Amino acid sequence: MYEYSHGGNAVFENGNENIIDLSANINPLGMPENVRDAIICEISNCAFYPDSFSSRLRKKIAGFEQVNPDWLFCGHGTSDIIFRLPRATQAKRVTITAPTFSDYERSSRSFGSEITHYPLSAHRGFALDKDFIQAVRLKNPGLVFICNPNNPTGRLTEPGLIKELLDCCLRTGAWLAVDECFLDFAELADEYTSKIFLESYSNLVILKAFTKLFALPGIRLGYALCANRTLIDNLYFHGADWPVSNLAQTAGIAALEGAENYIKQTVSYVSTERRGIEKEFTRLGYNVFESKANYVFLQNPYQFDLQEELDKKGIRIRSCGNYRGLNSSFYRIAVSTKQNNTKLLTAIMELTEPHINERENQ
Amino acid sequence: MYEYSHGGNAVFENGNENIIDLSANINPLGMPENVRDAIICEISNCAFYPDSFSSRLRKKIAGFEQVNPDWLFCGHGTSDIIFRLPRATQAKRVTITAPTFSDYERSSRSFGSEITHYPLSAHRGFALDKDFIQAVRLKNPGLVFICNPNNPTGRLTEPGLIKELLDCCLRTGAWLAVDECFLDFAELADEYTSKIFLESYSNLVILKAFTKLFALPGIRLGYALCANRTLIDNLYFHGADWPVSNLAQTAGIAALEGAENYIKQTVSYVSTERRGIEKEFTRLGYNVFESKANYVFLQNPYQFDLQEELDKKGIRIRSCGNYRGLNSSFYRIAVSTKQNNTKLLTAIMELTEPHINERENQ
Repeated sequence: MYEYSHGGNAVFENGNENIIDLSANINPLGMPENVRDAIICEISNCAFYPDSFSSRLRKKIAGFEQVNPDWLFCGHGTSDIIFRLPRATQAKRVTITAPTFSDYERSSRSFGSEITHYPLSAHRGFALDKDFIQAVRLKNPGLVFICNPNNPTGRLTEPGLIKELLDCCLRTGAWLAVDECFLDFAELADEYTSKIFLESYSNLVILKAFTKLFALPGIRLGYALCANRTLIDNLYFHGADWPVSNLAQTAGIAALEGAENYIKQTVSYVSTERRGIEKEFTRLGYNVFESKANYVFLQNPYQFDLQEELDKKGIRIRSCGNYRGLNSSFYRIAVSTKQNNTKLLTAIMELTEPHINERENQ
Repeated sequence: MYEYSHGGNAVFENGNENIIDLSANINPLGMPENVRDAIICEISNCAFYPDSFSSRLRKKIAGFEQVNPDWLFCGHGTSDIIFRLPRATQAKRVTITAPTFSDYERSSRSFGSEITHYPLSAHRGFALDKDFIQAVRLKNPGLVFICNPNNPTGRLTEPGLIKELLDCCLRTGAWLAVDECFLDFAELADEYTSKIFLESYSNLVILKAFTKLFALPGIRLGYALCANRTLIDNLYFHGADWPVSNLAQTAGIAALEGAENYIKQTVSYVSTERRGIEKEFTRLGYNVFESKANYVFLQNPYQFDLQEELDKKGIRIRSCGNYRGLNSSFYRIAVSTKQNNTKLLTAIMELTEPHINERENQ
């Protein structure tokens, strides 16, 4: 049986609807209020084909992102766009980091690209650095994927480095895809987005999603930003027609209605909670890495399987054992509601304290 | 700007919401009643990822189709599955008929397959015949697409011929995809489906959709039937994760609830209306071809552009000028509500009668 490698399946795998699922990084504020009514109003229109080009939605996103609507392609989740990209760019060679989101590798393998994995090292906090640019220059790929902040580490990349990478890619004829699906959770997101490079770099594609930020994973809606019209046309060509359902187009428009306030609240809440969780894990001896996303990334120094033990307590976190470049001592844990975060920290304390004592007694 | 080649865009292209759109072949009975409530109940679950494997939906479809749930793959519309197929089968060469649905060609081009078009001839009523099997044998493709009944002709293919084709494909190592998206509109659909071959032919894939039969094009939901588990796994691998949204999974389950009755009514209504429309077009001198689907297929013998003239009267039909193997004298017209069909026939009469008189006076 085919297996996906993502989080967010706790309920299906476990059959327990009450499990606290911290394995998927969904905005704990929940979906914006007006999404529900918008979907209900749209149901009767499902008897008609969707607008293939999501015109109204693109106009709305363009306002939100402050870009030209013609620079947008909307798809059935960002995953859909990630699968179209290697084909749309005809990239014979693809460079990706390790660890990172697994779909970049799968979509490249599906297209038949040769893949180079650039290892990010734990002792540098999994930061992307100038050596990466050197590696790209050497391997001469047609397409480079980076994720900012990275999944699962939450580590941000400086815009200065991205500009150097873009220059390098431009010289060698490579496309750069910057996945910013988690960027809007970060404080100072505006200073870290690559949007400022869109106009000058026709080889830049930015990926974004409604899934995480607006807590709408069940809707399937993502988009790409790119100033190169040929790339946008190629994205349409290399995948299913009618990429976005009527309901998803409507939900997206509604979600963006009060987005500014919603995002402000989200960033403030998530940052505070993330710091609280990180502090507690650090106090308990875990190796916590710097994350600016809506999840905590850490390494377990103790001799027990954190995911297995938390599962027994009805909490599912994401073991990073199946991420290339990591092993099962690494975990990604979503920032959730206050109640869930408290339950997590109580459970972690109960699980960890005996091990601390053991250590101290040695 | 990228252009799709399908019908169903009248409202977007024309900007007139009152246009009667007969360019898309949607069930005129409208979406099944309980779909609406099912979608409303599911909205709050959109804060969670969908089940990647659409388990509940597959079980429901399996009951409806009388097949093993493991033989099913559900996707974001049949178009999504058509795009996964050339990759899932790694078909270097693909054989398709001309005319037929344009996505087979586009998905094959996206994968980089070499494409052979087998011309169906007007004087044989666009029927598939034994020469096609001979052509497949000669070209030795990895994948063959046929559409039963064919889009846009509505012509059915006999199961005996499909069995011969399957045997031929099995010998040469080719996959056969039979698109049955319009089959359930036909009387005697049970005698024409290729489902009976699934168990014996591991190289057979059948494609079906909720789009047309259940009037749900805006939902995006289609499925493939195949007894070969490797193919099913490959369909999952070669495309976006979470292929079906929560709302589409729920809508599909609800649509199948009272399906038997709904389909019985549909077939009876559509067949009667189609015959009525065909009779009138024939009387007016049009060359009407045998269609068993929910659309009429005809050639215009007069010197005027039928689509253009009907557009002026607020009715959009599908010119087949952009179908390979046809030209702009061919048209596909959906069977619609009684009111719309009457408006169509009145308009056609008004447009055509002066031309009949002209002819008779010559």
